[in-house]
Amino acid sequence: MSYALSTTVHHTFADTLAATRKFLVEQGFGVLTEIDMQATLKAKLDVEVLPQIILGACRPPLAYAALQSEPSAGLLLPCNVVIRALDEATTVVETLDPQVIVSVTQNDALSPVADEVSRRLTAVLDSVTKTFADK
Amino acid sequence: MSYALSTTVHHTFADTLAATRKFLVEQGFGVLTEIDMQATLKAKLDVEVLPQIILGACRPPLAYAALQSEPSAGLLLPCNVVIRALDEATTVVETLDPQVIVSVTQNDALSPVADEVSRRLTAVLDSVTKTFADK
Repeated sequence: MSYALSTTVHHTFADTLAATRKFLVEQGFGVLTEIDMQATLKAKLDVEVLPQIILGACRPPLAYAALQSEPSAGLLLPCNVVIRALDEATTVVETLDPQVIVSVTQNDALSPVADEVSRRLTAVLDSVTKTFADK
Repeated sequence: MSYALSTTVHHTFADTLAATRKFLVEQGFGVLTEIDMQATLKAKLDVEVLPQIILGACRPPLAYAALQSEPSAGLLLPCNVVIRALDEATTVVETLDPQVIVSVTQNDALSPVADEVSRRLTAVLDSVTKTFADK
C-alpha cells in the first residue's frame, strides 16, 4: 500500500503552495502547523535542499472523532500536507494517506473518519491538479 | 506491533510537560510545532477535553538523513510527542514509535535513522519516568 496521496504539477512552488492553502480552507481544514524544511535545514545544518513545506492540516470535528475512538490518535495528527519542489517548474503536493492511520492503529472504528479525510484531501489534490492543468 | 512508545506518570500535566520539553532538548530535539488540542477543540467545537499537547520534535540531522533516503519522508515528520492528562494527577507521555516510519514506507534504508530516533526518544521517556518515580 502506498502511504501517500499525491499530485505533481508543472508549476512553481510558490503558486502551488498558495493554491494548496486555498483548497485546504475550502475543504474545511485549518492549518495548525507549518514547517519550512528548506529554511530549517539551512539554519540548523547549513545544507541546501529544494523548497519544501510541511503543513499540518486539521479538521477539528474529525480530529475530535478520532480522539474519541483512539486516545493515542494525537500521535498521528495533524494530517501532513507536503508541498515540495522537484525543480523550478515542477512541484509535488502529497498528503499522508489517512488509511495509514487505520492500518497503524488497527482500529476499525477510525475507518469512517479516515474515509472522510481521504475524500476531502483527494478533493484538495484534484483541485490543485485542475488549477494548473491547462497552464 | 504497538505504534507508540509511552510512559504514564503520577504527576500533573504541567510539570510533566515541562520535564518532557527539557529532556527533548537534552536529547538534541528541537520542538518545531506545538498544538494545544484542548484549546483548539474548545475554540473550534466548544467541547471540553482533558489537557493534551502535541509537540512536533525534530532532530535536524536525522530529518535530513530521512529525506535523503525517502523523498516523501516529510509526510511522517516531525516525530509527534503527545503529553495528555488522564486525570489531575496522572499524565501520559507518548511518542510515535519511529519503527512505524520504516514499516509504513517499507524502506529499510530508514532503519538506522529510526533506530537512532528510537534510542533518543526512549531516553526522553525514561528520564520523565525517573523524574517522577519517587515523588
